[in-house]
Amino acid sequence: MNGKVYLIGAGPGAPDLITVRGAEILKRADIVFYDALVHPDTLAFAPRAKKVAVGKRCSRISTDQRFINRNLVEAAQKYQIVVRLKGGDPMLFGRAQEEIAALKKAGIEYEIVPGVTAALGASAEVGVSLTCRGLSRSVVFVTPRVGEGEQAADWAKSVLASDTAVLYMAAGQAAQISGILLGQGLPAATPAVVVEKATLPESRKFHTTLSGMRNAGQWNLQGPALIFLGEVFREAAVADTAIEELLHTLKAVSAN
Amino acid sequence: MNGKVYLIGAGPGAPDLITVRGAEILKRADIVFYDALVHPDTLAFAPRAKKVAVGKRCSRISTDQRFINRNLVEAAQKYQIVVRLKGGDPMLFGRAQEEIAALKKAGIEYEIVPGVTAALGASAEVGVSLTCRGLSRSVVFVTPRVGEGEQAADWAKSVLASDTAVLYMAAGQAAQISGILLGQGLPAATPAVVVEKATLPESRKFHTTLSGMRNAGQWNLQGPALIFLGEVFREAAVADTAIEELLHTLKAVSAN
Repeated sequence: MNGKVYLIGAGPGAPDLITVRGAEILKRADIVFYDALVHPDTLAFAPRAKKVAVGKRCSRISTDQRFINRNLVEAAQKYQIVVRLKGGDPMLFGRAQEEIAALKKAGIEYEIVPGVTAALGASAEVGVSLTCRGLSRSVVFVTPRVGEGEQAADWAKSVLASDTAVLYMAAGQAAQISGILLGQGLPAATPAVVVEKATLPESRKFHTTLSGMRNAGQWNLQGPALIFLGEVFREAAVADTAIEELLHTLKAVSAN
Repeated sequence: MNGKVYLIGAGPGAPDLITVRGAEILKRADIVFYDALVHPDTLAFAPRAKKVAVGKRCSRISTDQRFINRNLVEAAQKYQIVVRLKGGDPMLFGRAQEEIAALKKAGIEYEIVPGVTAALGASAEVGVSLTCRGLSRSVVFVTPRVGEGEQAADWAKSVLASDTAVLYMAAGQAAQISGILLGQGLPAATPAVVVEKATLPESRKFHTTLSGMRNAGQWNLQGPALIFLGEVFREAAVADTAIEELLHTLKAVSAN
């Protein structure tokens, strides 16, 4: 008799941003296969479970997808409640389809528990709504590709055609991405926000513009980061700049 | 002394798809202003709180946004923990920016707690990942506009330029939307899925194509619904059709 596999979205980073359903299933889990992006405290929701790290962190050491698939199938033959815990939501940039296909093929029962995707965790933190009446009625979530080839800039078209854009797994290539989008005709002054480690205490936010993203190297980004682009971020950037200027003035005053 | 206002995403429908953080804040809430899309059982997370319905359901009776803004500010002057509970995520199609602006102006402390957006709840239910290696690296979330005017079809460009599209607050106009997208050059055979009341027990799913959406009237959609478009849904549609054909055959066999 086979167990059941739950593909659960762990949310954007902070452990308490998992869903109530996800946390309840973790409590009963026998084994949890988790991504590198999952916070250690999220695993604390599963005190009974054996925990298995399966890598999967953008461009770092990652476990082969076929190995993960095989692990899930084998675990379901041995345990009642098997959890595959993914950063964010399983159905957005999570390779879920390949795991689902493997489970289907093996006749294993499965269920998907959605999660808060990184873009929404970061948007809450920045305090700017991704849509806004009269300003933005479309938001695209995209993973850019900076390589060569004919279709290399297809992703850029979706950014240009949408009012707001969120670029996943992109911060390490912010300068190249800026160049591609400028080349495709996105205005240099388009407001941009880069958010690193959204919803975690060590989170950092950088307000800039599309052309300013060429200097992303100076921020020394270490963790997972998102790039936001669009007019909705204009006011937020102004507010942040005003605060920075105020702090600068106060510092100057106190130094005298 | 002012209280604090929490803008909380209630998730896509099922009460246990709210985040752990959202549920914890509701437990301590003094007053909750909730949308029509919020499930009654979600309100059960807030036993202490006074509950105030503030409408906001696409194209039905809805409370004036300025009235909601004023209510939030006044509540924060009277209560310690004020919750504004929104269907899905506050930062996607939630008019959050207007409420944030009102709170900022009044000097009220606020915090945004993200939620699982409807598209991800529905995607989990359909069992199809919105992105897929080699097939889809961009997903646009958009509210279509079917009215007249020059910019009326601007939203359609974002659908055409993205690999996968999710249309929010659109199901009531599925036939017109189909016409607009066909007119813009989206292939008639583009796989489409319409999901009504995603994540709830009474949820319904319809697998069709862009041209098939012209017959949406026959489904008699009542609740909130999403339209999905894109190649990622092709296999799902085939599987569903195969099951339908099998059931049809079984019925014919048992009738003989």
